[in-house]
This record gives sequence, structure tokens and C-alpha cells, in this order.
Amino acid sequence: MAEHISRRASEQASICLLEQYQAVRSRSTALCEPLAVEDMVIQAMVEVSPPKWHLAHTSWFFETFLLKPHLPDYRVFHPGFAFLFNSYYEQVGPFFPRSQRGLISRPSVAEVMAYRHHVDTAMARLLTQADAARLAELHPVLLVGLNHEQQHQELLLMDVKYNFFINPLHPVYARPSPVAASAALQQGHASYEGGIFPIGNDGHESFAYDNEGPRHQVVVEPFRLAKGLVTCGEYLEFIEAGGYRDPVLWMSDGWAAVQRHGWCAPLYWERSDEGWQVFTLHGMRAVDPQAPVGHLSWYEADAYARFAGSRLPTEAEWELAATADNARQELTETQADRLEPPVGGMRFFGALWQWTASPYMPYPRYRPVAGALGEYNGKFMAGQMVLRGSACITPQGHARVSYRNFFPFEARWMYGGVRLAWDD
Amino acid sequence: MAEHISRRASEQASICLLEQYQAVRSRSTALCEPLAVEDMVIQAMVEVSPPKWHLAHTSWFFETFLLKPHLPDYRVFHPGFAFLFNSYYEQVGPFFPRSQRGLISRPSVAEVMAYRHHVDTAMARLLTQADAARLAELHPVLLVGLNHEQQHQELLLMDVKYNFFINPLHPVYARPSPVAASAALQQGHASYEGGIFPIGNDGHESFAYDNEGPRHQVVVEPFRLAKGLVTCGEYLEFIEAGGYRDPVLWMSDGWAAVQRHGWCAPLYWERSDEGWQVFTLHGMRAVDPQAPVGHLSWYEADAYARFAGSRLPTEAEWELAATADNARQELTETQADRLEPPVGGMRFFGALWQWTASPYMPYPRYRPVAGALGEYNGKFMAGQMVLRGSACITPQGHARVSYRNFFPFEARWMYGGVRLAWDD
Amino acid sequence: MAEHISRRASEQASICLLEQYQAVRSRSTALCEPLAVEDMVIQAMVEVSPPKWHLAHTSWFFETFLLKPHLPDYRVFHPGFAFLFNSYYEQVGPFFPRSQRGLISRPSVAEVMAYRHHVDTAMARLLTQADAARLAELHPVLLVGLNHEQQHQELLLMDVKYNFFINPLHPVYARPSPVAASAALQQGHASYEGGIFPIGNDGHESFAYDNEGPRHQVVVEPFRLAKGLVTCGEYLEFIEAGGYRDPVLWMSDGWAAVQRHGWCAPLYWERSDEGWQVFTLHGMRAVDPQAPVGHLSWYEADAYARFAGSRLPTEAEWELAATADNARQELTETQADRLEPPVGGMRFFGALWQWTASPYMPYPRYRPVAGALGEYNGKFMAGQMVLRGSACITPQGHARVSYRNFFPFEARWMYGGVRLAWDD
Amino acid sequence: MAEHISRRASEQASICLLEQYQAVRSRSTALCEPLAVEDMVIQAMVEVSPPKWHLAHTSWFFETFLLKPHLPDYRVFHPGFAFLFNSYYEQVGPFFPRSQRGLISRPSVAEVMAYRHHVDTAMARLLTQADAARLAELHPVLLVGLNHEQQHQELLLMDVKYNFFINPLHPVYARPSPVAASAALQQGHASYEGGIFPIGNDGHESFAYDNEGPRHQVVVEPFRLAKGLVTCGEYLEFIEAGGYRDPVLWMSDGWAAVQRHGWCAPLYWERSDEGWQVFTLHGMRAVDPQAPVGHLSWYEADAYARFAGSRLPTEAEWELAATADNARQELTETQADRLEPPVGGMRFFGALWQWTASPYMPYPRYRPVAGALGEYNGKFMAGQMVLRGSACITPQGHARVSYRNFFPFEARWMYGGVRLAWDD
Repeated sequence: MAEHISRRASEQASICLLEQYQAVRSRSTALCEPLAVEDMVIQAMVEVSPPKWHLAHTSWFFETFLLKPHLPDYRVFHPGFAFLFNSYYEQVGPFFPRSQRGLISRPSVAEVMAYRHHVDTAMARLLTQADAARLAELHPVLLVGLNHEQQHQELLLMDVKYNFFINPLHPVYARPSPVAASAALQQGHASYEGGIFPIGNDGHESFAYDNEGPRHQVVVEPFRLAKGLVTCGEYLEFIEAGGYRDPVLWMSDGWAAVQRHGWCAPLYWERSDEGWQVFTLHGMRAVDPQAPVGHLSWYEADAYARFAGSRLPTEAEWELAATADNARQELTETQADRLEPPVGGMRFFGALWQWTASPYMPYPRYRPVAGALGEYNGKFMAGQMVLRGSACITPQGHARVSYRNFFPFEARWMYGGVRLAWDD
Repeated sequence: MAEHISRRASEQASICLLEQYQAVRSRSTALCEPLAVEDMVIQAMVEVSPPKWHLAHTSWFFETFLLKPHLPDYRVFHPGFAFLFNSYYEQVGPFFPRSQRGLISRPSVAEVMAYRHHVDTAMARLLTQADAARLAELHPVLLVGLNHEQQHQELLLMDVKYNFFINPLHPVYARPSPVAASAALQQGHASYEGGIFPIGNDGHESFAYDNEGPRHQVVVEPFRLAKGLVTCGEYLEFIEAGGYRDPVLWMSDGWAAVQRHGWCAPLYWERSDEGWQVFTLHGMRAVDPQAPVGHLSWYEADAYARFAGSRLPTEAEWELAATADNARQELTETQADRLEPPVGGMRFFGALWQWTASPYMPYPRYRPVAGALGEYNGKFMAGQMVLRGSACITPQGHARVSYRNFFPFEARWMYGGVRLAWDD
Repeated sequence: MAEHISRRASEQASICLLEQYQAVRSRSTALCEPLAVEDMVIQAMVEVSPPKWHLAHTSWFFETFLLKPHLPDYRVFHPGFAFLFNSYYEQVGPFFPRSQRGLISRPSVAEVMAYRHHVDTAMARLLTQADAARLAELHPVLLVGLNHEQQHQELLLMDVKYNFFINPLHPVYARPSPVAASAALQQGHASYEGGIFPIGNDGHESFAYDNEGPRHQVVVEPFRLAKGLVTCGEYLEFIEAGGYRDPVLWMSDGWAAVQRHGWCAPLYWERSDEGWQVFTLHGMRAVDPQAPVGHLSWYEADAYARFAGSRLPTEAEWELAATADNARQELTETQADRLEPPVGGMRFFGALWQWTASPYMPYPRYRPVAGALGEYNGKFMAGQMVLRGSACITPQGHARVSYRNFFPFEARWMYGGVRLAWDD
Repeated sequence: MAEHISRRASEQASICLLEQYQAVRSRSTALCEPLAVEDMVIQAMVEVSPPKWHLAHTSWFFETFLLKPHLPDYRVFHPGFAFLFNSYYEQVGPFFPRSQRGLISRPSVAEVMAYRHHVDTAMARLLTQADAARLAELHPVLLVGLNHEQQHQELLLMDVKYNFFINPLHPVYARPSPVAASAALQQGHASYEGGIFPIGNDGHESFAYDNEGPRHQVVVEPFRLAKGLVTCGEYLEFIEAGGYRDPVLWMSDGWAAVQRHGWCAPLYWERSDEGWQVFTLHGMRAVDPQAPVGHLSWYEADAYARFAGSRLPTEAEWELAATADNARQELTETQADRLEPPVGGMRFFGALWQWTASPYMPYPRYRPVAGALGEYNGKFMAGQMVLRGSACITPQGHARVSYRNFFPFEARWMYGGVRLAWDD
């Protein structure tokens, strides 16, 4: 009888996991619906991947870490895909150079879709056949796989935006949906006391990456944090005051980047006869001074903060403030996925990731998980900076107070903005 | 009455030109039939263009040089295409960077096809409406446009081959057709007397590029010319004798290229457990020692000739020999377009272009044609070498004894081979 | 009378400062004594500066920050030197590109020496003429200038070593002095308790850079620290175990650096028929397995630590351990400047700088000093890692427990080694 | 008796050769007299070599091709110099990378001078000990060695000029000598008949390089040639008419070079408040509109000729005109070496080398000499253009009607100017 109950519970769990799996997987293909086949192939800079590649790579992830080790009679879809769609897992095997992903036309989009179907069918079989013990074993890897696919959903939108931007025809990904009533702009700042506090994954989330822990104590001095993000209007003041021409505002490497790239505004901004325009997933439109400014490199975020007489917050400050302000509440209020940040309203989540003053380094006593999945986060802990919060294009359910996003200093194509901090 | 006759003659001429036009144009799209939409988008190196771009650029050519100046009410298909599909005509206007042609997904293939249709319809109108005087004016430009499109047909096949080669899945463009009986290998060499001879366009061809004239006298010393092309078997001897490791055989810049690129065999050759394989438009297959060796840079052609105790012929020698041997006859005997060079048979035409010892320079008293079309050939007369003859993929009717093809010293992706010469 | 005493005190202070000044300045030229004029000119990689440039730039520093603002009738030595010998102070004016410092032969060495003499004479005048108030004003800037010159003394030796290394004749900077009796190798490790501790400049030093403060609290968990540095013998095990060929040991960017540079040993190591040799300022010699291993990049230090089942210490851990162990004591025991690290003996100071796990970031509430001198440290707080301790070539009096040295991840030409740490 | 006479004749010949040798050799060191030791070390771009290197390399040439094979007990000066001072002779052995010649400070200038002395002493021994038969064998190689050293004398001056130019202090190599009375400007042009003519080394010179022959027939059509070189004043019209901004005037690769390098005037020209200045070996001075314009790339020479409604002459045209006009006469009239081209006077020789329309290719039936000396000229016959005549800095006795100088299309640091030609 107990066994019977257990079996039913296991079946329930299987069904529940499978539903989660299918929900995440179907969103990836839904995001590609507005795209032409041609759009699925291109890679307009080395950091970007073709949409087709995202669809295939996320399938390869399940194939590699779940189907091949756990589904006994699984047959790989194509022997060449392990090489083509491994991103960077050295322990799994060699991989195709990232810089050349946009140079290969085959497998075609249709073949990639067939690959996804093949993997999905096998995953359904794996999940429905698994008994409770097996499910318990698969569960953590499955969660990584689903969160991995959600990250690639965000990347896919970032990448499409960049790919479309460099095209002089400036294609439109989606017509804007009827605008929700904008919330009021968040203005002013809030003060937070200093002290010794814990930060990092507290174990109450259904999932967290290994890099969010271990939870540990930090000393924080009293600080203030802006209630809202820096707006395009505020950033325009920086531009017009000559911020991009004044080396005193910049880190040395940042100033070199300004010279090297000829930066004079955020990525996607273009000056026209009618003033500043910005490229969005809805096409070109006028810069809205009330909207949060995005697509800044860390160097620009840092230089702006210096210009404004402030600084970037540390990730500890950000997390403490978010905790103190019960920012998790925001996550349930966020409007379903939007393609561009809303004007006003959002504080910690749902508009733009927020650059911090913290290099992406392991927390004390951090250990990557064993095996190839340990390469997921750990090996990038050098030379990158942490962003906190989430963006409008971050999938529902993928944001957490302890979440640590990270990008190199010069990256601008992710949805990254600025929240200012001050010593108190 | 005379007028009536003239009108009918003009109508005949119009119809004839239009048929020529349609024949050439339809072949371009026919060449793309084996391609997936994805294949139409990519550009695997900077010298290559996406097939989609070839289809659009050749249409832009007619639009720019015939429709816009000559069809009064012509409406351009898309205002952005003048920028996207101008290749290099500075006098026409600015153009999109060549190196980024593979980064743009739009216009889609379907839009490019609509563009072609738009241009074809207008061209039919232009040609059928033109009176005799206008036709006479259009005729030379039309011929340039058609020959231009034929050149891009050859480029398209060269480019698809390269694009497919760098894909680890090695896609196949076309299954091999039933092989025609191979002709016997041409062996030995023929002697030619020295003297003073005319070379260059003699005016008997229905069309020739400006760079093929003016016809002029040259002094040539007695020489011998191989009857056939260097074969893969012969070239293998060079490889196995360490030809790629012996600097004495190479021009200084050529030796630097060998080091820089790590060359150790012709482009498309790969050593496998079963011996040397070569990538073709029919897929990978074993190197045939009897087949002519192709996809050599000028440096490799020159080094091989030195290794073989011979030299490359000058373009004058080549043209004199072809004239003396009545090579035009070959043009009528050539099998319709093939994708890879035949074994045996072909001498001057129809297998591989043949590198010469002649830099691509203007003939004495050469003047480029006036206007933007003068940029077609003239501005490339620096730093390139002449190839003579034609290749298996050269369109029917596009080869001539006076034809001067040209590529930079390091180029290997065109169908370029070697015919040896000796002083006599 | 009080005034008289004050004047005498002021004179005493002047004389004392001047003696310090002269001692530091004369050491710079003394370091160049073994060099030929030719050695003073070259720059074998962009990070390196010609010795001549170091001599001139350090003089420019005093000229710019003391003589021009404070010595009323000071005449600059040469109007062109402000451009040539400004290193990176944007607020002072434009500067000659760093990468081209080795391309200019003039001013000659003799002219640079005359420049030094000119500055030294003026500095003597400035210091002896200054009253107590003025001296108090000059004092902090003078100390920065002297510490700056000491840093360049260390750089000069690093740079000469690199310049000599790439010369196939491998010149020798100095014959080895009779070796002092080696101290015993430090083995094993020491445990330190966790807790909340202050780190940073405690104000008891006669000088500290702005980046060493403010002093602030940190949370540290219990840890162990190796008593000595990793030796060449231990590092050889890493090499022989294939450490340079195993991506699992490396950060992602580190692995890319290994591939890009072809690293297979520390800088200056060369494998010969008689085993591993290492280039030193005394010429080539056999690698001593007991000597501490130096000239590692951060990536190599990090990979080695992972290989050894340990990790790099944070800078807080390093400073706490050094404080707890009364490492300042070492500073008084250190043998006068040596050119290569001693075998055994030194723990925290006097052998090799020690890479830490800490990115070079501002301490909480850090503010750079006002004006151009604020560019000294502050603008490099992005993308570099901290090293602690000091090296054998660090000038006497230039080491401190709170000292924060910093270099980019890939830098190897400074004297950087490894001290391992473990969680406890 | 006959033997006695023969011995005396041989002694005479030895002495004569030795005097020639010493005259050439001593001029090389004399050219370095105005240089500081520091100037002897630097290499401001990859095409340039340090003066020290020129002095050593020319000595290595005699050591390698005469002393080692022919002086039985010769001891090489230093075993490392064969590697350091071989320029590009692959058959002799490996060589130090050209791009790094300015990165090595040792051997010092004094050591290089000792090397020269060592070689000179041995050469004197070789020449005085040789009997007639041996002398006859050595003679051709010795002549190559002396002409080689003369070429390096010209290179040395070119290189010093460039090295000094990039130094913001703009050092002066030599004060101008009292100016000789300028000859009148050569104006207008001369007509030459067409026909079939021989060109190339006619065997009447005491020395010629292998690339100047074999003498052979060429067909030349009637042409005109300017009597003088294009002047700075004429070239200024090109600049002011926007020549550097009009792509129609340029070869495609030339236009790309203009963009890439930002060319807007000849090398060494700088626009100042007082108008155009030009850097010379005598320092900066105002551009003289009457002086011939130099330091042009082939692309600029070609674009200017097109702008002027003319063209560059072929090397055959140049040689025929020089022969017809008895230009050899000029060689005896030329003022001893000058550092900058004279105003007026010189036609074919003694002012600036003159770019031709001829690629540097072998003459019909050209064979490089056997052995490593065959690398002297032959392996550069690809991708370079011929210049004819000579420059003011060309050593006395080093100019010939058949002399073929050659440089790549983009080179500007040699003394290269323009003589225009027209079809007649």
C-alpha cells in the first residue's frame, strides 16, 4: 500500500516535472516564431550565437547530461552534434569554435527542430519511466537544464536584438503590445544600516546555482541606494556634459575602451536629425528620458556613477537592500515577459540587470559541483563583474534575490543598467 | 517600308536580347535550387559572398546601370538596396562593408527573389519598348550585365563550395552525375616558335571586357607548353618531397604565406587514414591522381613549377599557344557545366583556370570605359596575377582566348590550376 | 627663540628629507651602472619601458608635482619632456604612446642624466629654502615621489630582465654575489582562527598609498596558510603531470591564454638537454627545485593551487596572517637587495610577491586623493589582481603589511609567486 | 717571367680590389658618425633596421660568402652572429625575426665595430693572399658584397630619417651644407619613337645584378616622357583638389590604403600654422614648391598621374629614354652624395627613384645565380613594383641605366618620386 502510494507520488512528480520541462522547452521555440529562417543562422559578433544554435545547444544539454547517462537505449540524434553544440564543456569533449557559429548553414532549422523533438520525446520517456529514486537523482540536473534553457532564452533575445541592429534595414522583432499603464518613476534613495549580515542562497528557493552559495557573513557599512534606475534623461546629461570625452571620469581600461570603440553613447543609441533614437526589439524609436538607460558596459556604469557623485553598489549591499525591502514581492507582481524595460515601477527586478562594484569571485568555501557541470559557473570566476536583479526579458521564475549574473567589463548587449549607491 | 523593316528588325533584336537575358538570369536561380534557405545567408570568409547576396547584387547591377538611367518611370524596389547591394562602385555611392555580408539576415531570400522578379519585369519592359537607337545604346551595357551575372554564377559555386567545406558536416551540393567517358590524359608538351605577335581582343568576339584590349604586339621567345594540366598525382610528389617545407622553392612572400596559414596541401585536401581526400561540390572523395590539381594559390603554382624544373607561362605565351592550337574549337566541344574538373581531355578550357607568370596590368594604351562601369576592371590592376582559360564551372559562352581572369597571390578558392612552360 | 628653534627644526627636517631624496635618487642611477648605453634604449614588449625612460619619468614626476607648482623661478629642462615622460596622467596633459617608448633614441642617456641633475639641483633648492609650513605641504607629495621612484627601481630590474631574455645572446646583468647561507625551507602550514578583523593601513607607517586604506572590518573564516612559497620542484610536478594540458585545472580565460601564448612553463624557463634552465639577472642557470617558483601569471598560480588541492589566499587572509605572525619583523632581517629570490628563509617578504584570490578593488569608502595624483592608483581598480608581500628586488623600506601590489591576470614578468591557502 | 708578370698583375688587382673594399666599407661607418649610440639601436617600424644591424649584417655578408668558404683558417667572430645578422638567406640558416631587430641591445655598437674590424682584417688577408685564379673566383662575389653594402648605405639613411621622424623631438642628422647653385627646373616633355628595342644589362658595366638581365627585345609604342620630376608644387594641387578624398583616382587597393593609414599627404609632410612642412635629414623645413616630391607610395604616384591626365612610364620606356638621352652622362656630373633631392637639374639620376608602371618580374630566360646568393633578388619577384634611376642618397657608382630597384606598393620611406609619361 505504501508502495502503491509512493508509486502514485512518483507518477505525480514525474508529470509535474514533465510539465515544467515542456513549458520551458516550448517557450524557446515560441520565441523564434517571429523569426525568418534567415534570422536563425546569423551571428553578428562573436559574443552572439545564432538562434538556431541556442535551440540546438539547449537540446544537447539534456541529451548529454540526462539522456546519454540515464536513458539506457537512447540513440543520439546525430553523431556530429556533440561537437557542434557543446558550448564550452572541456570535460565532455572538443567543440566547434564559438566565433564560427554563424558560418555554418547546416544542420538546417528544420533539422534542429527535429533534434529538439527527438530529445523531447526521449525526455518524456525518461521522466515517465523513472521511479522515485531515479527521479530524485535526475531532479537536480533537470533543474539545471531548465534554468540553463531559460538563460538561453534571454540570450536569444539579446542576440536577435544585436543581429537586427547591425542590419541597415533594422528589422523589427515584434510590434509593441498595448502599453500597460506605466508606474510612477521611483525617485530618491533609501538608507540602510551597516552591520554584519549573511548573504547568499538561504536554501528557501526551489533552485539556485552553485555560485549563489555558500551563505556567509559580510561586513557592510551604512549606505544609501537609489530607489530607481538611472534614466535615459539623466544619462543624456552625462553625454551632453562631455562624459565620454573626460578621462578623469573613467577607469584607465575603460578610457582605453572608449577610444578603441569610439563609444559616445550607450549601445543601440543613434543620433538623428530628430534627436537621439534607440534601437529596440520593436524597432527604432525616440529615446524616452523617463525610461531606464540600458546597454551600458561596466565602464560606462562606473563612469556615470562617478559623474553623479555616487558609486555602484556592491553585490552584498544590493542583496541586503533587496532582502530588507522584501523585493521577492516584486517577482510576483512583474508583468509577464516584456521585450523592453518599462518606464517606472520596477525596482530590483524586471527592468534591467544592475551592474555592481563586485568582481565575480567565488564566495568563501565555494566548491563547484563535481564533473562537467562544475564548469557551468566556476571557471568564469576571473575578470568579470556581477550584475544583480533581472531584466524585462528574463523568463518568469528565473529571478532570485541571490542570483549572480556576470559579464565582462566591456559587454553591452545584455540588458544592463545602473542603480546608484552612496556611503552613508 | 524601310522603317517597317527596321521596326521588325528592332523587335527581333529585342526579343533576342530578352531571351539571352532570361537565359542567363534563370540560370542564377537554378544554381540555388540545391541550396537550403540557410545556405543562402552565410559567408565563411571575407572573400566569399552569401548566395543571396549574389542574386541581389546582379539584380542591382541591371537596376543601376540600365533601369534607373533608361526606363523613365522605373521605381526602385527598395531604397535600402542601393547601399546593401552595391559591391564596390564608388561613383555610384557608399556600400555596405564586404566583410559583413554574412551578418545580415534581411532581406530574406523570398524578398530577394521578389527583387529579381521586379527587375526582370522591368527589364522585359525596357527591352521590348526600346527602339533600334535605344537598343544600340543599351546593348553594350546589357552585355556587361549578362557577363557580370555569369561571373557571379561562377563565384556563387566557388563560394558555396567554401561555405560547405568549413562546416564539419560537409554538406553535399549535388550528387555526381553519371560520369562521361574520360578523355585520355594530355601528356607531353608542344613547342612554339618565337617572334613578334599580336595579342588581345581581335574584335571577332560578340563580347569582350575592356581589359582584353587594345590588341597589341608582343615579343615572345621560343617556348614549350605542357599539353595538359599538372595532375594531383604529380602534385603529390611535390608534397611528399617536402615541397611545403623547402623555402628555396618559394617566393619570399609565398614562403611567409605558407608559414602564416600552415599550408601543407591544396585547399580542400585533407589527409585521412585512407589517404588524401578532397572536398568537392559532390562531397568528400579520394584524391584522383589523374585529375588536374586545383585550388592552388599563385605561390603554390609557382613553387610547384620551380620544383618541376619549369615555370609558369606568361599570358602572351598562353594566348599565342591557344591561338595556334585553335583552342576556340574546344569551347564548342566542352561538356555542359560540370562542378568538378574532368579527368583528361580538356586543354585550354573547361577544366581549371591556369595561373600565369603575368601580373594583371593594363595593356598598352588601355583606357577604362567612362563612368562607374570603368571601375569594373580597371581599378584592380595592381597586386593581382592573371589566370587564363576557363574552369569546368565557368558558364557556357563565357570563355574566350583573350579572357583575362585575375586573383591575388594567396587566393585559393577559385578553380585555379597549373600548366607548365619551358624556355626553348 | 621659539622661532629660532623652529627654524633649526625646519632645517633639520629639510636636511633629513633631502638625504632621503638623494638616497633614493642615487640608487636609480646605480641600478643602471651595469648597463650599456644600448641597454637603456630598448623596450622588448609593450609592458616594459626602456631604463632611460624610467630615469626620465621619475624626474618628470618631481618636476611636475613639486618643482613647477612650488619652486617659483623653476625653469623646465626641456619643453618636450612633459609630453615624452608623462606616463598616464590625463589631468597633466597628453602623453607619448607607451607602446612606442622603445622607438625613440633621443633624448640620449647623457641628456637624461643632465635632466636628472637639473631636477636634483632644483629639488635641493626647493627643500633647503622651504620653511616649516611649506615643508609640511610638500612632505606628502615628496613621499609619493620617492615611493614612486622606488617602484620604478623594481620595474627597471623587471624590465631589464625581460629585455635581456629575448636577446639570443642572453646578456648578464650582474655576476652573482657570494651566496649568503640559505635559510631552511619553510614547510608545512599554520592555522588561523576566523572572526571579524580590521585590515588596511593602520596609520603607524611613515608612508602608505591611498589604496591601502581606509582601514575597515572584514569577516574571515578559519584558514590555513602555507609557511613557505611553492617551490620550483613542486611546480615541476604540476608541469610533469600535464598541468598545462588539462583544461579542468584552469579558469576559462586562463585556458585561452595557455592556448594563445603556448605556455608550458613559467616565464624564463627553457627546457634544454640538461633539463630545465631559467633565465635570471645573473644569466641562465639550472632550475633549483628548492627555490620558490616565480614569474607566474595569476592563471598559472590559480591552476597550480587547484592542482595542489588548495587555493590562493584572499588579501585579507594574507594580511591577517602577516599581522598575527609579526611579519614586519622580517623586514628588518631581510638581506639588502638581491636580484633573485633566496632559497628558503623568507616567508612574507623579500622573496616573491604572492598572488592572492582578491581582485584589486577599492576598500569601502576609499577616495582617491584630489588632483592628478589621484590617478596614481585609483584608475586601475578594474580587471587586475592583488599581490601581497614583496620581492627580493623590492627596495629596502618599500614593503608594508598593508601594501597592495596589482597586475593583470596574464602578467608574468614581475616577481610573482604562490603561497597556498586552505579552508579550515 | 710571364709568371712574374702575372704575379705582379695579380698583386695589382688585389690592391685595387682591396682599395675598393676599404672605400666602400669606410663609408658605412662614416655615415654613422653623426649618430649617437642610442640612434644605432632603434627600429621605428618593421621595414626599418637599426643602423647597428646594417653595420653588422654587411659584415656578416663578407664573412659568410667570402671568408668562411675561402679563407682556410678563418675564425668566426661570434657563433651567435650568424643567427642575428643573417637577413633572409634561408639556405644559410635560420635567422632572427626582422620585426625584433630593434629589441636587442647587444652586441653593443662597440662590439659591432670590433666585428667589422675583424672582418676587414681577414678580408685584407684574403685579398692579398689570393693568387690570380683565386681572385678571379672571388671577384664576382666581392662585387656583390660591395654593391650590397652600398645598398645598405642607402637603406641606413632612409631608416635614420624614419627613426628620427617619429621622435617628437625631431632630431637632425646633419646641418645642410652650403647649397650648390640650383640648376634650372626641367620642364616639358620629350617624344620617343616606338619600335622594337633591346633592354637590360648590355654587359658594358663593371657590375650588374642578375635581375638586370638577360638583355631582351621589347615592343614599345611611341610615347612622351616628362623631362623633370613632379614637383611639390604640382603635388600640392593634387592635395588641394581633394586627390586624397576622391576614390575615382585610385586603384582599389590604393584607396583602401588611403583609408587604412589616413594618408592625406606624402610621408614626412606635416601641415603647420605656417603651411606645409617636411621632415628631412636636415630637420623640419618648409615645403619647397620647386623641389621634386618624394616619399610617395606607388598608389600615390599612380593616383597623381591619373589626376594629371598621364600615367607612369613602363620600365622599358624609362630605360629606352635614358639610353636615347645618354643619361649615363648624368652619372659623372652628379654632385657627391646629398641627403635631400636638389631643386632642378637632375633628370634620370641623382634626385629621386622613379616609380614605374612595371611589376618587378623576371626578364625572359632569367635564372637566379646558384646557391644562397640566388636569394638576393630572385625571391622577391612577386607583388612589388620597379623604380628606376637613382636618388640623391644613392652611393656614387651604384647607379646604372639598367638598374632595377623595387618596393611594395605601400612603401613610402625610400626616396621615391614620379616622372610622368603619355601615349603618343
